[in-house]
Amino acid sequence: MSDWETGRLEAFSDGVLAIAVTLLVLDIRLPDELEPGHLRAALRDLGGSYAAYALSFLVIGIMWANHHALFRLIAVVDEGLMFVNVILLGAIGFLPFPTAVLARSLRTGNDADQVSALLLYGVTSVLIAVGYNLVWHYARLRGLLLPGLDPAVVKGVTRDFVIGIVVYALALVLVFVSVPLTMLTWAGVAVFFLRGSPRPVLVS
Amino acid sequence: MSDWETGRLEAFSDGVLAIAVTLLVLDIRLPDELEPGHLRAALRDLGGSYAAYALSFLVIGIMWANHHALFRLIAVVDEGLMFVNVILLGAIGFLPFPTAVLARSLRTGNDADQVSALLLYGVTSVLIAVGYNLVWHYARLRGLLLPGLDPAVVKGVTRDFVIGIVVYALALVLVFVSVPLTMLTWAGVAVFFLRGSPRPVLVS
Amino acid sequence: MSDWETGRLEAFSDGVLAIAVTLLVLDIRLPDELEPGHLRAALRDLGGSYAAYALSFLVIGIMWANHHALFRLIAVVDEGLMFVNVILLGAIGFLPFPTAVLARSLRTGNDADQVSALLLYGVTSVLIAVGYNLVWHYARLRGLLLPGLDPAVVKGVTRDFVIGIVVYALALVLVFVSVPLTMLTWAGVAVFFLRGSPRPVLVS
Amino acid sequence: MSDWETGRLEAFSDGVLAIAVTLLVLDIRLPDELEPGHLRAALRDLGGSYAAYALSFLVIGIMWANHHALFRLIAVVDEGLMFVNVILLGAIGFLPFPTAVLARSLRTGNDADQVSALLLYGVTSVLIAVGYNLVWHYARLRGLLLPGLDPAVVKGVTRDFVIGIVVYALALVLVFVSVPLTMLTWAGVAVFFLRGSPRPVLVS
Repeated sequence: MSDWETGRLEAFSDGVLAIAVTLLVLDIRLPDELEPGHLRAALRDLGGSYAAYALSFLVIGIMWANHHALFRLIAVVDEGLMFVNVILLGAIGFLPFPTAVLARSLRTGNDADQVSALLLYGVTSVLIAVGYNLVWHYARLRGLLLPGLDPAVVKGVTRDFVIGIVVYALALVLVFVSVPLTMLTWAGVAVFFLRGSPRPVLVS
Repeated sequence: MSDWETGRLEAFSDGVLAIAVTLLVLDIRLPDELEPGHLRAALRDLGGSYAAYALSFLVIGIMWANHHALFRLIAVVDEGLMFVNVILLGAIGFLPFPTAVLARSLRTGNDADQVSALLLYGVTSVLIAVGYNLVWHYARLRGLLLPGLDPAVVKGVTRDFVIGIVVYALALVLVFVSVPLTMLTWAGVAVFFLRGSPRPVLVS
Repeated sequence: MSDWETGRLEAFSDGVLAIAVTLLVLDIRLPDELEPGHLRAALRDLGGSYAAYALSFLVIGIMWANHHALFRLIAVVDEGLMFVNVILLGAIGFLPFPTAVLARSLRTGNDADQVSALLLYGVTSVLIAVGYNLVWHYARLRGLLLPGLDPAVVKGVTRDFVIGIVVYALALVLVFVSVPLTMLTWAGVAVFFLRGSPRPVLVS
Repeated sequence: MSDWETGRLEAFSDGVLAIAVTLLVLDIRLPDELEPGHLRAALRDLGGSYAAYALSFLVIGIMWANHHALFRLIAVVDEGLMFVNVILLGAIGFLPFPTAVLARSLRTGNDADQVSALLLYGVTSVLIAVGYNLVWHYARLRGLLLPGLDPAVVKGVTRDFVIGIVVYALALVLVFVSVPLTMLTWAGVAVFFLRGSPRPVLVS
């Protein structure tokens, strides 16, 4: 029965992440009023929106992959794990808002606004990293992990997830340096975490 | 074949709840016009929207968990159960609207409007509680529950679901006392129900 | 392998229908400008939107149940069935638009507009009924039904699906008689079809 | 375990494609202001929106079917495949934006704008075709295909996917010739690819 439980929690999580990632396109919008013949220029002005879409699609897509990798290590679901998973999903599901704010600030080009937008995005990233840690430590401390899971894997995940918080927190400093550099760093960190995703190695 | 049926009803319900919860972010919106340099202040003004998002994400997330727990007690699905389940989903799927109204009234700050918004939210909560009772009693009276399900579990669910209606109805009075207290109560009730979710204990 | 195919086609269809039904709530909107203290009156003015939401949630919810019942009779999926199923989903996925138009015309109250809105909704219903017939006859003629399916079941579905087109077409006349009567008829027809949904009886 | 992995990647992909296809309806919108009695005319003016909806629903629906057919040839999923699949989904999930732009340009009728809109749509199609090639060649070169898959099938898919890029790129020229012809060509290419979808033939 535990297997089925993990299955439905994952189905719900897949749904939330798939929707969050697909809603991103709704924030790419032309201005309401547009003079005839100016469409091409208007499409070019949306460069920031395309970049924000690509960044968040990549980030949420990889978060989905990480969620998937994480739950391969978990054997049983209880009410508490559902609860912390809802908190994690709530943080990820919030990301379309910072994405929309970022796209808008890239369009208007005001420096102070871009810093505000990047900070909102960055703080949300930190909260998501905290959410992953909550889910992981809850599952670990309540004994919900796969029986016989290699302690080295457990240790590795614990370490990587702490690094996640630290890296996203440090990236907040980049916000004051350069907009494109910050966005590239976030994309890079996501890809890095995908590469290092844990495998359910069991101790024989 | 019955198993497959429950599976597809749950998949559809998971989908509806996952989408309802993820749509909530679309209601966090900046004003259309914003002077350059005022983004930080505008983001701070959205405090009510963040609170409404967090509340409804938690509430719908826990409703998903409860739906999941409830259907673990149900063995077979018939057309009538699909029908009452659609009614329940329709009530939950409505929640993004009261959430948007609540967020808006928290932003404008008019007292009468906040009471109206909270009442709309509270009445929707009562309707959802009624929907859970409909599904439960339909399944119970039509003999769709797991064969051999412990009568104590059945009794417990019946009692908890009546309490649900009563508590949400009583919470309507709080609306006239304090906005944050009402919102915290709703969140608390949701968490309480998650903790007491029933388990499919069988009589051997 | 055929089973898996049906599974993924159903998962995709479940997704589309679950999303279509949940998007309906996005069309319940307050006016952009609202004077402080007028929220209660504005919420009351949305009566038509609530009715349109309830109608379409019920109709799409039951269409999901019918889709489910229909695919219990189908054993194998081929490319052509995917194609006609996409057409059917396209017709159902269009329904949020007539729903929004209907809600709007109920709010403004102009008679000619209400007739136009109901006709749009009614024609969409006829198209959906045609879509169900396409899927059914394609599956039947290509031999994709369950082997050994009772011919009486096949005959019954064929008859009911023709009746579906006829009833929805006739309901177009009601449009010119009464708005609430038309809406109640649509809801009634949906419930009627749910009750008569076919079962996969096999000839032994 | 590999089977389960493919399952969850497909579930996520199904979700993204089902949502992208269902979001299309949100872009069919009446003007905000409409004089009483003018609804019928306004609905008629939306002809371009209906055509764009039908085209993109068909195209994404068939892309879903092709995704399904493609993953029937793949046995195992690794992190890199998740990554290229996210890129492919990001390209498909972008399609509602060109669809909205196309619908709008069909409504306003300016020639230069229609060419811009069609080019945006066409370039997105080429990117999607590139995405399919990425997924395919990644899976092929990393040895993730079904063991014993007939080399003729592998060769056929490789050839068809190159043709896909070429055809979509050539269709960009049509943009300057005729709007309806371009749209019909895109729909035709989609249907053609559905017909030629590969089957997992194994070498015995």
